[in-house]
Amino acid sequence: METLMVALGDRAYPIHVGRGLLERSELLLPLLRQPRAVVVSNTTVAPLYLNRLADSLRRSGVDVGEIVVPDGEQFKDWPTLNTIFDRLIESRCERSTTLIALGGGVVGDITGFAAACYQRGMPFIQVPTTLLSQVDSSVGGKTAINHRLGKNMIGAFHQPRLVLADTDTLGTLADRELRAGLAEVIKYGLIRDLPFLEWLEASVERILAREPDALVEAICRSCRNKAGIVAADERETGERALLNLGHTFGHAIETGLGYGRWLHGEAVAAGTLIAAELSRQLGWLGTHDVERIDDLFRRAGLPVRGPAALSVERYLELMHSDKKVQDGRLRLVLLEAVGRAVVSDAAPLGEVAAAITRRSGDG
Amino acid sequence: METLMVALGDRAYPIHVGRGLLERSELLLPLLRQPRAVVVSNTTVAPLYLNRLADSLRRSGVDVGEIVVPDGEQFKDWPTLNTIFDRLIESRCERSTTLIALGGGVVGDITGFAAACYQRGMPFIQVPTTLLSQVDSSVGGKTAINHRLGKNMIGAFHQPRLVLADTDTLGTLADRELRAGLAEVIKYGLIRDLPFLEWLEASVERILAREPDALVEAICRSCRNKAGIVAADERETGERALLNLGHTFGHAIETGLGYGRWLHGEAVAAGTLIAAELSRQLGWLGTHDVERIDDLFRRAGLPVRGPAALSVERYLELMHSDKKVQDGRLRLVLLEAVGRAVVSDAAPLGEVAAAITRRSGDG
Repeated sequence: METLMVALGDRAYPIHVGRGLLERSELLLPLLRQPRAVVVSNTTVAPLYLNRLADSLRRSGVDVGEIVVPDGEQFKDWPTLNTIFDRLIESRCERSTTLIALGGGVVGDITGFAAACYQRGMPFIQVPTTLLSQVDSSVGGKTAINHRLGKNMIGAFHQPRLVLADTDTLGTLADRELRAGLAEVIKYGLIRDLPFLEWLEASVERILAREPDALVEAICRSCRNKAGIVAADERETGERALLNLGHTFGHAIETGLGYGRWLHGEAVAAGTLIAAELSRQLGWLGTHDVERIDDLFRRAGLPVRGPAALSVERYLELMHSDKKVQDGRLRLVLLEAVGRAVVSDAAPLGEVAAAITRRSGDG
Repeated sequence: METLMVALGDRAYPIHVGRGLLERSELLLPLLRQPRAVVVSNTTVAPLYLNRLADSLRRSGVDVGEIVVPDGEQFKDWPTLNTIFDRLIESRCERSTTLIALGGGVVGDITGFAAACYQRGMPFIQVPTTLLSQVDSSVGGKTAINHRLGKNMIGAFHQPRLVLADTDTLGTLADRELRAGLAEVIKYGLIRDLPFLEWLEASVERILAREPDALVEAICRSCRNKAGIVAADERETGERALLNLGHTFGHAIETGLGYGRWLHGEAVAAGTLIAAELSRQLGWLGTHDVERIDDLFRRAGLPVRGPAALSVERYLELMHSDKKVQDGRLRLVLLEAVGRAVVSDAAPLGEVAAAITRRSGDG
């Protein structure tokens, strides 16, 4: 088991990465403020892993409740959140009860937001079971639900007490989900960690083959990048925004097509290529840089172009209502070089439109 | 104009109390992160005061949006909150736009919670227009909406950037609302400020007659107590809980009767007398102490008994699902003496039931 710390003063917390962690209740017990916890999971993950985690806690004397929500980004909404609140109130959970998120990014986001709001805040623990959530969404305290007019529009910063990334849970992950998670892994290399990017270029097939050592290394190096950024900028007033490379375009793809059509990581992959193309138009990247990025995403089995169904006009409309607008200008994460990202509003709208067009459809 | 500070480090903020403040946009301008604000008010307050505030800001070059919600505790719920989100997203508000709550406690609570969650947090300003909100709910950053199973169950701690208490707005406040606000004013005297309690015993009729000097003094001395408690215990891990004197019983009354039947302050008044009666049963207060408290609330025109319609069993059931339960025991704010409150789980359930019975119905 590898352990990293997210350095946030009195809210610092560990990330454990390794095999067989679901059954190691001794890692969770010291963090519970009362011997009571409620696990939130979804209909896909619960049958596979909920008993393993809950039974381990129960054997240690913890009263464990269970809430199972439907699986899918389209359920990351108020009605699902409200069913969590209903259950917490009906079972008389207190503000010192701990909520545990067992699942992917959707479960983590909605459970974290429930924990942030229930009685104005209760402790929670992240037990991510997808590559995407293990390398990205479970770390850093961003929680949210979607609004019909925009993704992650309603949420809170609420840090977990612990992140437990059991790599055994990746054994049942669909190939498509594994590839989608790789998009966020590659992102860390692109924005700030060239040596990691080079390691990924050498190792992407080993990760796709789920070699345990390759998975642990990819997750640990990703979390180290994420933890460093979060510790430096918890509330996204600066550096943390770099984590949104590809996300402004990606969110437009997800919202424009309807949640669930493209996976988040797939949309981010295509969005990253649009951002890379735009960086090339601004003269910051060379053609070979864009090809290098294109090549790695292709080897990871990810889309490198946006969907044909989405017009440039629709992209721009959706991006305007996203959170990345400040004082009326589009603030985008772009690449100054491979391995170095920057937040910039330097790109005129015409150039943004051109990059989208060049990287959309069957091209 | 009197000014107090809530000492919360880099989140410290001023409370201004005085006449004619709605028109003094220079008090708000330095706090806006962009020249854009949205005022949230209700159908009762908006026709009276919204233009005064909004026009003053517009004359200073601020783009001011307006959102008017229905008036009443029964609208402090998710559907109303969601209409605020709809409007913020539709008008493309950014996370640096400032939300301004213009109204009583309900408007302040729901607007503050909207600000806490919109894009994971935007700045907000409290402009309370009722006595209750000027002396209590606008200060301290507690925001929430109600859930059908409990009051204020869903919320956040989110501090305002400024509290602007314009006492002129009390001129249009219904007598019943003014009296309800007095319940929270008296509370400060009872829990920690005997000199203030004695001043209130000498001045309650002047406050009810709305003498400007008496109003300003009552509000300032209340806010000084509230600010002191909040600065010492922002997240209610200790002393802040004392502010809930009478509230556990009061919430049971409000929820049990259905929101809006009794005003919050009325329920708190009756709840405070139940807490005082219970303190007497425990031997902490004498009969004359309870009579003294009873007398002051009567002079303030407030109920000193719970409603006949609510059974003891229903109280206990409702209190169990309130936030004041820890490890299965009822934690109540009780009075060790007049002017000194304490959080205690010393009262057996039988004594709690006896106190409710003695202080319920027509007696």
